[in-house]
Amino acid sequence: MQAIGIDIGGTSIRAASVDESGHVTTFEQIRTPFDPEEAVRWIAQTIDGWESGSTIGVAAPGPLQAEKGLFLDPPNLPGWHGFPFKEKLEAAADLSVIMENDANAAAAAEWVHGAGKGTASLAYVTISTGVGAGLIVDGRIIGGFRGNGGEVGNMIIADDGPHQQGMNRGSWESLASGTALGRRAHAAGIRGGAPELFSLASSGDQAAEGLIAEWIDFTARGLANLFHTVDPDCIVIGGGVSGSAPYFMKQLREAVAAKVYKSAAETIDLRTAALGRSTGVIGAAVLRRLIRV
Amino acid sequence: MQAIGIDIGGTSIRAASVDESGHVTTFEQIRTPFDPEEAVRWIAQTIDGWESGSTIGVAAPGPLQAEKGLFLDPPNLPGWHGFPFKEKLEAAADLSVIMENDANAAAAAEWVHGAGKGTASLAYVTISTGVGAGLIVDGRIIGGFRGNGGEVGNMIIADDGPHQQGMNRGSWESLASGTALGRRAHAAGIRGGAPELFSLASSGDQAAEGLIAEWIDFTARGLANLFHTVDPDCIVIGGGVSGSAPYFMKQLREAVAAKVYKSAAETIDLRTAALGRSTGVIGAAVLRRLIRV
Repeated sequence: MQAIGIDIGGTSIRAASVDESGHVTTFEQIRTPFDPEEAVRWIAQTIDGWESGSTIGVAAPGPLQAEKGLFLDPPNLPGWHGFPFKEKLEAAADLSVIMENDANAAAAAEWVHGAGKGTASLAYVTISTGVGAGLIVDGRIIGGFRGNGGEVGNMIIADDGPHQQGMNRGSWESLASGTALGRRAHAAGIRGGAPELFSLASSGDQAAEGLIAEWIDFTARGLANLFHTVDPDCIVIGGGVSGSAPYFMKQLREAVAAKVYKSAAETIDLRTAALGRSTGVIGAAVLRRLIRV
Repeated sequence: MQAIGIDIGGTSIRAASVDESGHVTTFEQIRTPFDPEEAVRWIAQTIDGWESGSTIGVAAPGPLQAEKGLFLDPPNLPGWHGFPFKEKLEAAADLSVIMENDANAAAAAEWVHGAGKGTASLAYVTISTGVGAGLIVDGRIIGGFRGNGGEVGNMIIADDGPHQQGMNRGSWESLASGTALGRRAHAAGIRGGAPELFSLASSGDQAAEGLIAEWIDFTARGLANLFHTVDPDCIVIGGGVSGSAPYFMKQLREAVAAKVYKSAAETIDLRTAALGRSTGVIGAAVLRRLIRV
């Protein structure tokens, strides 16, 4: 049985047919059009004739009203604000549509087919331009009553930090996103962003090591806070920065273990995301297997 | 249909028969014995003949392995460490036993019969000697994979703070528990603890006002962090400090609203716990209506 997953991003829209083992068997993409009506037409035409069951899943950037399938005001999709995507796509494709924000869809993908396969519960944490999370407990996506479940980037983990529009002072995202890490590297005269920074640190550069130690401390505070709220079976680290996971996972795991109760320190389970660029379409395709609460 | 709830505390053990509306119709208590075998005998004798269905609920102080019904090392019950309470009580009373830690049981009580009745999801936050929470989403108690769900007192909300055995530096509990508030009041020469402090502040005492403003900021950080993880329909404030809720709830609500996204600020829903001293037995009695995940 195949399932269709659509991944809407600021740059491209991907449509895939995914088999029951999570393998992408058919794949198409276009550059994201300014006009969402055009995207709806392209999706309906592209998947026409694909085996699908009665439901297709869509992963999309927030903020969005997932249950209604309504875009709110995603910064990277200026022409899409307020667009009733679910309603339009259901009419055009004659299939029912389930939508979910991209962090929750990624969590679903990693839970069903990726690094968290077989676990009882999972927190997927994406560290990239921003910091966000998707939480799955017992087959249910904890989307939150107002859609703010997993908005952990806005958690307060320090007394102060750089100002970031719309976010709390001392928030996890403002202190430890990929962007924040890159900004600090740049201020210290290191060019090229997170990968270069980790590479420099691994060759013994002390300035780079210092910046990374600081980043690890902030990241561990955020992960420990998440742990002390829902205590998931495992935490999966994804997003752009996870490409450098071999450089930091051991240190990060130790830093988190030092911030939880002793009885939990031994069993804390941090993993690197496994699905890479297909996470979005796979997550979208498996949404129908989960319940949103 | 009646249900039996047992509330085990460091000082007393309470046994109650609770009706379907959450009213306590029969109630007995004893001082907590040092020997848990004695407690098991007292409970079995006391509830003998009470209408109960096949299951009785027990609320107990953590740390505990709720599913196994096993006490770990609760500091206020030194003679109970490692005691297999569920197994012993099931044998003595010939009924099946469900156990839950006291914060989760209080959350269940407030969700089914108290301040959170009718809501989709709830976070119960107790502010007393310590700070802890119980989370209920869609009729399920989020107990956590290692039993650390709702252990929000150990969340890191500041760069530093008073040292507290076994807790993180800058943790919510070390900065803003009832104990922490009382300690600060004492250091400022104010005698009598939280109620006196709130009373002084309401009569215009500037030192008291300053201490409370600081406490509200820390408490709001913790509540905002909880919000940005699970986004519950409502947050219920309980525990000893909630006795002073009329003095601080308006300010606290404003402080939390200032720390969440604008779209959520208008609808953030803080409530004062409604069930008072019967919370434990009521929560224990309703446990069989919920699922633990």
